[in-house]
Amino acid sequence: MLSVYYEDIMKARLYFSSDYMEGAHPKILERLVETNMLHTVGYGLDEFTESAKEKIRQACDAPEADVYFLSGGTQTNATMIDAMLPSYQGVIAAQTGHIAGHEAGAIELGGHKVLTIPAHDGKVSACDIAKCLQDYKDDANHDHIVMPGMVYISQPTEAGTLYSLSELKEISETCHKNQIPLYLDGARLAYALACQENDVGLKELASLCDVFYIGGTKCGALYGEAVVLPKKNFIPHLFTIIKQHGALLAKGRIAGLQFETLFTDDLYYKIGQNAIDAANKIRKALEEKGYEFAITSPTNQIFIKLEKSKVKELAESVELGFWENIDDSHVVMRIATSWATQAEDVDALIALL
Amino acid sequence: MLSVYYEDIMKARLYFSSDYMEGAHPKILERLVETNMLHTVGYGLDEFTESAKEKIRQACDAPEADVYFLSGGTQTNATMIDAMLPSYQGVIAAQTGHIAGHEAGAIELGGHKVLTIPAHDGKVSACDIAKCLQDYKDDANHDHIVMPGMVYISQPTEAGTLYSLSELKEISETCHKNQIPLYLDGARLAYALACQENDVGLKELASLCDVFYIGGTKCGALYGEAVVLPKKNFIPHLFTIIKQHGALLAKGRIAGLQFETLFTDDLYYKIGQNAIDAANKIRKALEEKGYEFAITSPTNQIFIKLEKSKVKELAESVELGFWENIDDSHVVMRIATSWATQAEDVDALIALL
Amino acid sequence: MLSVYYEDIMKARLYFSSDYMEGAHPKILERLVETNMLHTVGYGLDEFTESAKEKIRQACDAPEADVYFLSGGTQTNATMIDAMLPSYQGVIAAQTGHIAGHEAGAIELGGHKVLTIPAHDGKVSACDIAKCLQDYKDDANHDHIVMPGMVYISQPTEAGTLYSLSELKEISETCHKNQIPLYLDGARLAYALACQENDVGLKELASLCDVFYIGGTKCGALYGEAVVLPKKNFIPHLFTIIKQHGALLAKGRIAGLQFETLFTDDLYYKIGQNAIDAANKIRKALEEKGYEFAITSPTNQIFIKLEKSKVKELAESVELGFWENIDDSHVVMRIATSWATQAEDVDALIALL
Amino acid sequence: MLSVYYEDIMKARLYFSSDYMEGAHPKILERLVETNMLHTVGYGLDEFTESAKEKIRQACDAPEADVYFLSGGTQTNATMIDAMLPSYQGVIAAQTGHIAGHEAGAIELGGHKVLTIPAHDGKVSACDIAKCLQDYKDDANHDHIVMPGMVYISQPTEAGTLYSLSELKEISETCHKNQIPLYLDGARLAYALACQENDVGLKELASLCDVFYIGGTKCGALYGEAVVLPKKNFIPHLFTIIKQHGALLAKGRIAGLQFETLFTDDLYYKIGQNAIDAANKIRKALEEKGYEFAITSPTNQIFIKLEKSKVKELAESVELGFWENIDDSHVVMRIATSWATQAEDVDALIALL
Repeated sequence: MLSVYYEDIMKARLYFSSDYMEGAHPKILERLVETNMLHTVGYGLDEFTESAKEKIRQACDAPEADVYFLSGGTQTNATMIDAMLPSYQGVIAAQTGHIAGHEAGAIELGGHKVLTIPAHDGKVSACDIAKCLQDYKDDANHDHIVMPGMVYISQPTEAGTLYSLSELKEISETCHKNQIPLYLDGARLAYALACQENDVGLKELASLCDVFYIGGTKCGALYGEAVVLPKKNFIPHLFTIIKQHGALLAKGRIAGLQFETLFTDDLYYKIGQNAIDAANKIRKALEEKGYEFAITSPTNQIFIKLEKSKVKELAESVELGFWENIDDSHVVMRIATSWATQAEDVDALIALL
Repeated sequence: MLSVYYEDIMKARLYFSSDYMEGAHPKILERLVETNMLHTVGYGLDEFTESAKEKIRQACDAPEADVYFLSGGTQTNATMIDAMLPSYQGVIAAQTGHIAGHEAGAIELGGHKVLTIPAHDGKVSACDIAKCLQDYKDDANHDHIVMPGMVYISQPTEAGTLYSLSELKEISETCHKNQIPLYLDGARLAYALACQENDVGLKELASLCDVFYIGGTKCGALYGEAVVLPKKNFIPHLFTIIKQHGALLAKGRIAGLQFETLFTDDLYYKIGQNAIDAANKIRKALEEKGYEFAITSPTNQIFIKLEKSKVKELAESVELGFWENIDDSHVVMRIATSWATQAEDVDALIALL
Repeated sequence: MLSVYYEDIMKARLYFSSDYMEGAHPKILERLVETNMLHTVGYGLDEFTESAKEKIRQACDAPEADVYFLSGGTQTNATMIDAMLPSYQGVIAAQTGHIAGHEAGAIELGGHKVLTIPAHDGKVSACDIAKCLQDYKDDANHDHIVMPGMVYISQPTEAGTLYSLSELKEISETCHKNQIPLYLDGARLAYALACQENDVGLKELASLCDVFYIGGTKCGALYGEAVVLPKKNFIPHLFTIIKQHGALLAKGRIAGLQFETLFTDDLYYKIGQNAIDAANKIRKALEEKGYEFAITSPTNQIFIKLEKSKVKELAESVELGFWENIDDSHVVMRIATSWATQAEDVDALIALL
Repeated sequence: MLSVYYEDIMKARLYFSSDYMEGAHPKILERLVETNMLHTVGYGLDEFTESAKEKIRQACDAPEADVYFLSGGTQTNATMIDAMLPSYQGVIAAQTGHIAGHEAGAIELGGHKVLTIPAHDGKVSACDIAKCLQDYKDDANHDHIVMPGMVYISQPTEAGTLYSLSELKEISETCHKNQIPLYLDGARLAYALACQENDVGLKELASLCDVFYIGGTKCGALYGEAVVLPKKNFIPHLFTIIKQHGALLAKGRIAGLQFETLFTDDLYYKIGQNAIDAANKIRKALEEKGYEFAITSPTNQIFIKLEKSKVKELAESVELGFWENIDDSHVVMRIATSWATQAEDVDALIALL
């Protein structure tokens, strides 16, 4: 009975508007099918989840890490930020950070202000973080304002850019010198890890961040994000906090199994590689054809300036993501690749450009 | 590499401790595989989700209904209760209601008090609801207390019992006469719908409740609950409210597709039927063998009083759910069946009792 | 122009319905007038407030205590409970406790569940607290429920009764053995301190409670409650937490000055004594006249059972407080005395009874 | 016993650092003394409060207005904003607005984001509000972001500037055309009303704003702010909402009586006039002496640029308010006058400049 819209969906079009347009990596579905009738306990206390946690601990070289699986990004950000901050503290983030503008007030619903600092290509600098913390300390009336209590960054950033290891080290040192935790949103982490330009691996993340999450929804899973807390019991009673925030999955094994699969045979890295290879090929073609990039991003998201007329023309055969208006006749459009991007679609896109 | 614990999990045991111990109904996995590489937009705006919504509207005979898919029960209860109540109102629920005792404070995190009234076999009566509302009105100082703003019930209840159509009508009338909404938690709704004793169908729910949800997690889905609001736009901006509560799934199609499958070819009813048939067979055997029931429940949960020595003996070959202590030597144990319960396991269990 | 209602207010009536029906103890007004044009800094950092803090520290024999002045009882309870509890914890209180029923959901607005335990003459027992904490620990699924994180009691209780020193010691020991703080609401503390039956002084409160407040609004001040935290820095950043909860008074000196006055020349004790002497005289007369007490309370609140016809008769010349209905023809009424109760009014009331 | 610090406080100094450094206007204290032993009911239901409400209704030419008295500014802003907004909405305010930077996260504690727009001399423009609202509507993904749900402004602004009647009309029209309420914070309203430049009276405020408050704490009261809602029942159950937010004063009459006094014989206007006359005299002297103003403000706050060496010199005999650093050798200092400013102190200050 789905035949009518199936046809519509499947008609010859190219899809490059986001990285969560398909189901899951086939290997994940395979494992779901294969383990389907096995019986396990609920709430993530099962063997699949335990195995996933252990594999993540190994990949992060963090043998004591607490690992939890939540269902999505907004939920993970809102729950973890609220878990880390007492009521009177806020979270430092880039003005362009995801939590600053695109979480529908989820952070504020938890009672916390997002304290924005300048973004440089989507990134914050250790220097600006230090300034924010120092300004707070220097303010003679700081007892009357929101205390910065943690730092939020994402890798890749909202703009698809990457923190280098040295940048991340500086940020981490600034946080820890000031005794506040560093939290990293890795919704698209697979696409950072696979970049040639990237020098920040999971082990570095585990050693520099207090909490971070490894994204599943945008990196090949049906849903799910893996929160990693390298220091054991860094947040006491986190299980209950997650439940209280509506983020505890009763049938936890499904999230566990997905991450167990993603962290078997380097699948998470392969998924990233496919997207990066595709993005690099498109980027090279765009350069050659003289397109102008709005942001220089090395990951799976490409931001190009286009005339509106060109956008309209392309829209007939390819779906791109709208990013922002520049002026009356120009816009920035996003091309996103993913684990699911096919080589022939990349070639077809290039041919159209 | 999972072989070690696979063996352990798969050793000859019987599993009757809950209804979310397995993956998903095979038909759901089949559909996930079949549609996996199709491209759709995110956030539940895709064709699969739209089709699921339409099928649910039809099943509920509620052509104007708003339908949303969330990931789990606690999340759904917390989000919807907060969406329905202004800050100064609380939610009326049975003392034994799920939100009264087992949601880790998720309702209170949203700022709302759970106003408990007596439970009769897990159910509340229209009479007690009316009394609670009248007591509030009669209280000369009611401006200083929490105003009852809605009623929460579940079908089946926490005790596995069922509201009859006449009971539900009375409750609905009481709510609407007092201009407060009625919300029904259907985490295990499939197991109510399939009961011979049940005279409340989806159409009746849609006509009597203001908001209810059709449970997926415990009724054959990998995860997911379908919230139904029969009156269009009953809660304005619900999409954003769901997002703000961390409950909006980016890859919404997966929840949509699961419900699309559950509401195709009566699968949701068949799932319920399997569990009820199994439970009825076990119930009959228990009666014949002289076991004492702690609660008379017609659905997929059976509560029996057992000597602790018997529990210990059974534990060697069958997993039951602990419910509560009675005295030093007796406990109440729960036997739960589900869409996944196999006939041979039912027979094996009966042989053991 | 106020003459019309002035006359109305002042017509020959007796007022015994509550203990906050008049302005402030004259000594407080005198001091306000005398210091009115002195210049001080805001937010409680002034010399009057500092002097009040020091006097309270001395009265409590708690030289390191942090002391804050807030404007009212609900505000103090809501702010301090939220300041003491992480999100996933609730507060244990008597079923009849003020925060359980009469704070309009202020505790829940802060995200916390009130976990009620039985009340015995308005009091909780160490035994019931221990049971509540043990039940939580024993619950195999306690990660899914609200963790009891502190104990709330009041002195006198909602029923006008008193905790004895030995009862309070037991409660305090139970709390501290379980590593949770004990909070005491002293909205009417002056009326406890002045009771002959009372053996719990401020020093004992400071040694047994982690946080408590000395009530001003109901004990002779225009407004204001003094929160005492005997252990220095028990709640870090409490100044900011108070501000964030809207409870920081810009012109803090007024609250400070009032408590500075109340704790000069034993005024707080004298205020209590006046109320207790008046209440005792009334209690004795009631006993002699054969009235039945609903609660045996030694403080400034007397609860008597009255026929409705008698209530109606009394209402013509005396204002009493309605407490609760007993049956169709009987109610419980409250007689409250205060710092402001005049001897001649007591005699007039007794004559009427 | 206060003699030691009394002397210290009273030593020959000049105080111009804020407008809440003294007690209350003597007339208020007089009335408190005069009415002290009268008996009234609690929670603002008394005759004094009713008279105050009526006088405010008359002054505002808003005979149907709801009026409530709260204890302070942060509390009033946090309570009223939370009362006006559903969870998913935020409040538009100037980047320099009080709630944007100086409320310790009180607005966010209520779950709401402060959506900042540019400030022009402390003021927002109707044009920028309209742009903010239009941007929200134009955003294709606005379901994922915080919806602007009301506008917050203050009169005078944080910078001591004033909205003209035509500016306020434009803002009001913009709000109402977009169906969102306009809220005005009048913490220092007396000092706006008394300005010669001001063309916005209470009647205009009542006709253009949906909710506003008339400040008491900074305008001659011991404490207290009067919230005015010109349209009857604009916020249903506001009494309970205020209680739930810890903002209901048990001995409500004290706030009521203060405002009853402030609105008798034009006292509120006279208080403003004293401050403005003093400020104007100082402003004129500053101009003549060639001082540079940091902001051109016509109200009771004067902002001047000073060399740090000059600040140090002045600090020996006069207390000014620090505003902000300009560079290594210059700062902005605030001179604030009030109802309590004495003519001789003004002359002494001018002599020192």
